[in-house]
Amino acid sequence: MQKRTFRFSNSATDFYFDARISLLKKLADPKKTVVLTDENIFAAQGKKFKGWTTIVLKAGEQYKVQATVDSVILQLIELGADRSTLLVGVGGGVVTDVTGYVASVFMRGISFGFVPTTLLAMVDASIGGKNGIDVGVYKNMVGTIRQPIFILHDVSFLTTLPEAHWKNGFAEIIKHALIKDAAMFRQLEQNSLSAYQKKSTLLSTLIQRNALFKIKVVQADEFEMGDRKLLNFGHTLGHALENQYGLQHGEAVAIGMAFAASLSASFCAFKPIKRVIDVIEKYGLPVAISYKKDDVFEVLKKDKKKEGGEMNFVLLKSIGKGIIHPLPPKEIYNYL
Amino acid sequence: MQKRTFRFSNSATDFYFDARISLLKKLADPKKTVVLTDENIFAAQGKKFKGWTTIVLKAGEQYKVQATVDSVILQLIELGADRSTLLVGVGGGVVTDVTGYVASVFMRGISFGFVPTTLLAMVDASIGGKNGIDVGVYKNMVGTIRQPIFILHDVSFLTTLPEAHWKNGFAEIIKHALIKDAAMFRQLEQNSLSAYQKKSTLLSTLIQRNALFKIKVVQADEFEMGDRKLLNFGHTLGHALENQYGLQHGEAVAIGMAFAASLSASFCAFKPIKRVIDVIEKYGLPVAISYKKDDVFEVLKKDKKKEGGEMNFVLLKSIGKGIIHPLPPKEIYNYL
Repeated sequence: MQKRTFRFSNSATDFYFDARISLLKKLADPKKTVVLTDENIFAAQGKKFKGWTTIVLKAGEQYKVQATVDSVILQLIELGADRSTLLVGVGGGVVTDVTGYVASVFMRGISFGFVPTTLLAMVDASIGGKNGIDVGVYKNMVGTIRQPIFILHDVSFLTTLPEAHWKNGFAEIIKHALIKDAAMFRQLEQNSLSAYQKKSTLLSTLIQRNALFKIKVVQADEFEMGDRKLLNFGHTLGHALENQYGLQHGEAVAIGMAFAASLSASFCAFKPIKRVIDVIEKYGLPVAISYKKDDVFEVLKKDKKKEGGEMNFVLLKSIGKGIIHPLPPKEIYNYL
Repeated sequence: MQKRTFRFSNSATDFYFDARISLLKKLADPKKTVVLTDENIFAAQGKKFKGWTTIVLKAGEQYKVQATVDSVILQLIELGADRSTLLVGVGGGVVTDVTGYVASVFMRGISFGFVPTTLLAMVDASIGGKNGIDVGVYKNMVGTIRQPIFILHDVSFLTTLPEAHWKNGFAEIIKHALIKDAAMFRQLEQNSLSAYQKKSTLLSTLIQRNALFKIKVVQADEFEMGDRKLLNFGHTLGHALENQYGLQHGEAVAIGMAFAASLSASFCAFKPIKRVIDVIEKYGLPVAISYKKDDVFEVLKKDKKKEGGEMNFVLLKSIGKGIIHPLPPKEIYNYL
């Protein structure tokens, strides 16, 4: 186990890398803690929740909605939760998003911690304080930015992670590589999904590298005024597709990255499109689907990244170098 | 008009005292602004909203709930609101609470301003950044603390304010006097509701005195770690009664203050109970109602002010001197 503390603008988060969930007993008082998880994790790893008051959510992005938040709040009231209650989200991005959001608004804010159980949540979703819920087809339309007091990594959760979720995680890892880390991109080209699944130190190193990368970006720009926007690479089209076509987050982002790479060729003279496509496909992710252009454009236009008419699109100048490029929505429409 | 800027921990708020709502055109771009108000204000003062995109809410505390928030968010999406949209709440405490809460969570936070239209909102509810909604009978169970960028006072809204709402405002003014301002309490003893309604400078002075008082308390303790808790005087029992018995906020607080005054006699040797009761009644407010002790106690136990078993009750040492007094819920039960 390795403990490292990172400061954000209003608070600090303790990271426990390569840890075990049993450590939770030292971080939280079971009498003053409520754990949130989902039915899949609870079914697969139920033993880990013994001794903790646990609220079990239905699993899946379709439950990342206000109705789930309402239900958790009613359960917290029933459980007699107060301002000193700690909420701990044990799960993937949906669980950590709902946990962070509920904790931000329940009694005007209580403390919370995360135990991410998916690769995606470990390297990305649990880090940075962004939380939120979807509104209809609009992803993360409602939420806050607030940091957890701790994040604990227990890779033993990955032993029961479905294959599709491994791919989801790699979509964000590929994204990190493309926007800022050419060396990691080459490593991804040389390795493969099964190699990372088999070699635990290779995997741990990759997880930490990506978690630290995300932490650094967030520390520099917590409220997304600048560089943090780069993390939206692949997410503008990705979000517009995800809920409309029932895609996994990683699939949607992968298609979004392939699209952004081809836009980059037109607007930034980006050349190595084939290397991008090859790596996306190598990690079992799609690079295109057929969709209804007008439907997708309608959702895309309402993306949070729009400001005063223009979309802030993330494009690539080269592998490892993402840039923000404002584009009129009409221009994007032509490329869809 | 008098402009004064006050800094809070994360942001500043511009106060425009003795102003007119027409000033709004200088503070906000109509093309990037959405105004929230309620049907009563819109019916009584509709002209003031001309030229502004306006969402009209149903009036009343029973609409300070998540369903209203959901509906406003859907309307904002429909209107094409984005992160640069400004939300302006024109109304009483329900409108400003809903506005502040929606703005805090829509797209993870957009800017907002207030034009309080009731005495209560001018002297209290609109100030301090606390916003939120009720969950069933539990008042303000969900919300955030986030400051508006401006607060604009236009007393011409008070010309159509119903009598009951004048009394609501005076409940909070009496509260301010009791916990911190003995001189203002004597002024309240000497004057009357109709005197304040008739003499506009007397009223303006009182409004500003109370607004500045509240600003000062919030500045010193924005996140309610200390002195801001005093503002909960009368509110613990008040909140437990308000939604269960369909009381006006001011009525509930008045009954809560009378109750807290009698607790103060027992726990703090507080003597002048009669002066407290007399002033409450002078401003047309009740000092008691009949209620079901056990029902009220059930709600009271779940109040946000409870921490680790004890209730933080606000009591009086003398007129103008409130103190925080932790009490076991059982002790309170005996006095109900």
